[in-house]
Amino acid sequence: MATAHGEVETPAFMPVGTQGAVKAVTHRDLEDLGVQILLGNTYHLYLRPGDDLIARRGGLHTFIGWTKPILTDSGGYQVFSLAARRTIDEQGAHFRSHLDGSAHSLTPEKAVDIQAQLGSDIAMVLDECLAHPATADAVRASMQRTLRWACRARDRFLALRDRLVPGVVVSNPGQAQFGIVQGGVFPDLREESACQTVEIGFEAYAIGGLSVGEPTEVMYDVASRTTACLPEDRPRYLMGTGTPEDLVESVARGIDLFDCVLPTRNARNGQLFTSEGRINIKNARYAEDDRPADPHCGCYTCRTASRAYLRHLFAVNEINAATLNTLHNLHFYLDTLQRIRDAIAFGRFESFRLSFHQSLSRQPHDS
Amino acid sequence: MATAHGEVETPAFMPVGTQGAVKAVTHRDLEDLGVQILLGNTYHLYLRPGDDLIARRGGLHTFIGWTKPILTDSGGYQVFSLAARRTIDEQGAHFRSHLDGSAHSLTPEKAVDIQAQLGSDIAMVLDECLAHPATADAVRASMQRTLRWACRARDRFLALRDRLVPGVVVSNPGQAQFGIVQGGVFPDLREESACQTVEIGFEAYAIGGLSVGEPTEVMYDVASRTTACLPEDRPRYLMGTGTPEDLVESVARGIDLFDCVLPTRNARNGQLFTSEGRINIKNARYAEDDRPADPHCGCYTCRTASRAYLRHLFAVNEINAATLNTLHNLHFYLDTLQRIRDAIAFGRFESFRLSFHQSLSRQPHDS
Repeated sequence: MATAHGEVETPAFMPVGTQGAVKAVTHRDLEDLGVQILLGNTYHLYLRPGDDLIARRGGLHTFIGWTKPILTDSGGYQVFSLAARRTIDEQGAHFRSHLDGSAHSLTPEKAVDIQAQLGSDIAMVLDECLAHPATADAVRASMQRTLRWACRARDRFLALRDRLVPGVVVSNPGQAQFGIVQGGVFPDLREESACQTVEIGFEAYAIGGLSVGEPTEVMYDVASRTTACLPEDRPRYLMGTGTPEDLVESVARGIDLFDCVLPTRNARNGQLFTSEGRINIKNARYAEDDRPADPHCGCYTCRTASRAYLRHLFAVNEINAATLNTLHNLHFYLDTLQRIRDAIAFGRFESFRLSFHQSLSRQPHDS
Repeated sequence: MATAHGEVETPAFMPVGTQGAVKAVTHRDLEDLGVQILLGNTYHLYLRPGDDLIARRGGLHTFIGWTKPILTDSGGYQVFSLAARRTIDEQGAHFRSHLDGSAHSLTPEKAVDIQAQLGSDIAMVLDECLAHPATADAVRASMQRTLRWACRARDRFLALRDRLVPGVVVSNPGQAQFGIVQGGVFPDLREESACQTVEIGFEAYAIGGLSVGEPTEVMYDVASRTTACLPEDRPRYLMGTGTPEDLVESVARGIDLFDCVLPTRNARNGQLFTSEGRINIKNARYAEDDRPADPHCGCYTCRTASRAYLRHLFAVNEINAATLNTLHNLHFYLDTLQRIRDAIAFGRFESFRLSFHQSLSRQPHDS
């Protein structure tokens, strides 16, 4: 996948750098891990330090000192999940900041403007996020609103590209814009959403509204049916997913791009992803365990720290427990993607997929 | 200075790794910074995870994965400053854990035993820590008790070396033991303490009971008078000091070894040491400041992050604000020591000392 800040090998995993930083690690750590693209959260960056300030710094890349590609979300998901006193109408989302209660509106156009000022390499359109489960009628109405918003977002994006919007700084003229397919768990709605979104025409397409509580098999099925409706020559991004197993299964269904807070958030809670399942490092059974978190892992944490030391650091609330756990979990995710890419390149993805699942189920998870 | 885990160039600064980790950074970061020796806190490690557990892991070096030298304190300072319901008698200190209220005693012998099990390269004797100010009579009595404790500590240390104490694991047979000079701000008591401590005979000597609230000039004066009483061929360690200015002035008075929480603790509070004075990165004036924290600094933080980004990370409470600030402050301290060593080697310490103070006073500190 080519971007204004370089190429990304796909399928790829994007660590979540919510506020312009991946929690508990430095950019140097991310580069060492082989991270090729970061995700930034528009909602958070809009509130603090503000897209105007970031634009004055020359955009998000310059501001945070990250020279590789960045994708920003539209801010919609956080408005739906974090903001207070939220109302939605045809115009957009109206809400109060979860920080200071200040009133804001996020419209399709505003989401484009903010991301233009941030200057990410990939901007996402604003979509409506429904809670799961929802009736087919509610999902249809929401999906259709998302399509109308997508038209408005694309118009705004093209107007900005043509420098027709005064007062908005375009920090990255090479920015791409991805459309988002909605439609819940209903195959016909997903198909309609995909066709209409492709008709509007974006640089590439994402699948939204999954990983929101539906059964795993339903997610796989929807992803599979939706990718079939998306152009083969454009990357497909499954938003907010998922477990390591989800990544492998989603790649099998045609997905190229992932983001998820699981590796980083779980790391801070002491849960480590390993080649033999998840372990909870705070468990007393690890207090005198001199083995690395994952005996098959070559990351910095596994090369230098025992489970006993990791458990101690977590138990006494050391800051670098979060760092070491995050380094390991991100390495596990990025290494899984690297192994997927290698397997695809060598034409042995199916055998990789089988052995990956067998390895993970070899011993019971303890968390 | 030669230790069982290699040599240390002096004068040297020891970052404080309270619980077996320097807060907010990894060992890899410390190695990149050129850290040659770490300090570990016996009180904390004794309570969690316990010296028995660490001894079963092969000692502190193995447990935490740090192969360079480690100095451990005696635990006394934390007992005096942190523990609850503390009483002191000739036998030792009796206290309750600040964590769970459990009852413990720290005697001169116990402090030796714990550090033997930890297997640090340098163990400190237990001394009595008086609050400043104190009367000459109180300081004399305390200093004399510290001498009696030092005799007991040395006896225990030699007995352990000769394997005469069953039940205590000697994790590092090459461990050295340093005596501690007390005597408050009274020159005659300092002199008496120094002479008697040297008479007991330790591998080297420390100056305790300073940096506890006395005026800076008094500290310098006491350090100066005390080093004059200590052997020239052994390192002299000024415990718990201090500011960058203190380090330069103390080296001028014959000090070789320092530890202090200032660079790491202040980093976590947003205060950065720079070649032009201290800055408080949370200050609003830095919100749009694209310069590095210290324009004359070559550390990772200053090479890659602006003041604006550092302020943002601190303001939104990102974990890596602590990491980046700590990397910078530790670099400033270690670089200052490196420059001191270079200046001494080239016979121009006095001109370095002058220009160092001039640079720091060039602009007003903002914190």
